[in-house]
Amino acid sequence: MNQTTMTGHLAVVGLGPGDARYLTAEAEAALADAQALYGYGPYLDRVPMRAGQSRHPSDNREERARAAAALGHAAQGARVALVSGGDPGVFAMAAAVCEEIEYGPPGWRALDIAVVPGITAMLAVAARIGAPLGHDFCAMSLSDNLKPWELIEKRLDAAASAGFVIALYNPVSRARPWQFGAAIERLRQYLPPSTPVVFGRSVGRTDEAVTVVTLEAAPTTPADMATLVIVGSRETRVIPRAGHTPLVYTPRAIAEVSA
Amino acid sequence: MNQTTMTGHLAVVGLGPGDARYLTAEAEAALADAQALYGYGPYLDRVPMRAGQSRHPSDNREERARAAAALGHAAQGARVALVSGGDPGVFAMAAAVCEEIEYGPPGWRALDIAVVPGITAMLAVAARIGAPLGHDFCAMSLSDNLKPWELIEKRLDAAASAGFVIALYNPVSRARPWQFGAAIERLRQYLPPSTPVVFGRSVGRTDEAVTVVTLEAAPTTPADMATLVIVGSRETRVIPRAGHTPLVYTPRAIAEVSA
Repeated sequence: MNQTTMTGHLAVVGLGPGDARYLTAEAEAALADAQALYGYGPYLDRVPMRAGQSRHPSDNREERARAAAALGHAAQGARVALVSGGDPGVFAMAAAVCEEIEYGPPGWRALDIAVVPGITAMLAVAARIGAPLGHDFCAMSLSDNLKPWELIEKRLDAAASAGFVIALYNPVSRARPWQFGAAIERLRQYLPPSTPVVFGRSVGRTDEAVTVVTLEAAPTTPADMATLVIVGSRETRVIPRAGHTPLVYTPRAIAEVSA
Repeated sequence: MNQTTMTGHLAVVGLGPGDARYLTAEAEAALADAQALYGYGPYLDRVPMRAGQSRHPSDNREERARAAAALGHAAQGARVALVSGGDPGVFAMAAAVCEEIEYGPPGWRALDIAVVPGITAMLAVAARIGAPLGHDFCAMSLSDNLKPWELIEKRLDAAASAGFVIALYNPVSRARPWQFGAAIERLRQYLPPSTPVVFGRSVGRTDEAVTVVTLEAAPTTPADMATLVIVGSRETRVIPRAGHTPLVYTPRAIAEVSA
């Protein structure tokens, strides 16, 4: 493959967490501009059909193969969009694309690569319930497919003991039934049983459900791969409201270092 | 004030970090729907003028007064939009609104409150350079106006020692000249001098500048209030590309717990 063929373009496009209301103008333009669309089937299904665009759906858990296929197609000189749920840079496709570029054919480094950011699940869930991420926070995937459980425990310890609010992606899957309960038990060593915990499922979709419970009740609250969990800090507050869902927020200011 | 007057609506709307390309469809609809617009002057200036809307710009650092004014206006039965840069829930206006609701007139709890998420700076900066937030990460404000410096140090220690990538908001201001350098020195106790650090300034605006340096060079790299800094972990990688800016990414998988 010679240099002149490397005129291809790959946009890794964040669709946000749910329906089209979360799409940015930039994402919409990138989708309209593409000659070929790649992505996990259910995400591709969210993109309106346009004449002259080819569509290449793939299964879940095939991130690297999907990224390589999209890069290979772009390397033929095409304008390709690879769609991602949420934000492509947060536990999604952008890192898989970078991995393929680093270890793939050298020519792929000459491609024009654009990552188009999107609303990631924790921002959408936080918005639905107030401002639980209003102070310092962290985001972790609870999946131990890609890292040792021991490291997840170390990070939970560090985050909770230093007072970060914690957004947990991928809390539960069929192959990982006990990890979420174990993570919550771990956090209970640092946080009071009354700490607010937000469960947000399918935000922006018709089956959306956002629930506020306590850390004590969190292990028995249903969660799955479509759920994003936000565990508050010692500072996080709940404002009850008659006739409305409560507001959950973490104040911007903190006066003292808690023990 | 009786119950029947509490029909007002307040939308706290995220504009994203720069120009209109980052605006979501939901944010656009919320802005079009408002009878009154509140916000920090330069953010309000980004919103197109519409007939019949009143505009109420305010100065920076007046978050609580601005939130209270917007809530008070909504409590008169109006549809009010309070605009915020980036995402309202990340070091922005949503927490200030919740604080005012918690400690303000009880009637404010009956208002219809919507937070409309936006692209926060760290997602926009990360997208520009690849996928530095591709693995577990945290977001902290370096401003010690709202928390003790001792707590910032504790959180930097916890985040770096547990292997989180760290997004630093508000790294430098005229009133806080030494804090950023001190934070980087702190992180050097845990991370090699070669650790990649991304400086993103004014992303999405005409004066946008995104730079990749090492942790060693970070203290002498210019930064200000419009800069978002992402400090990599031990896993974060840089892919050089001839004729293109390098890609910076943090791999999705990590095989071992590093020391």
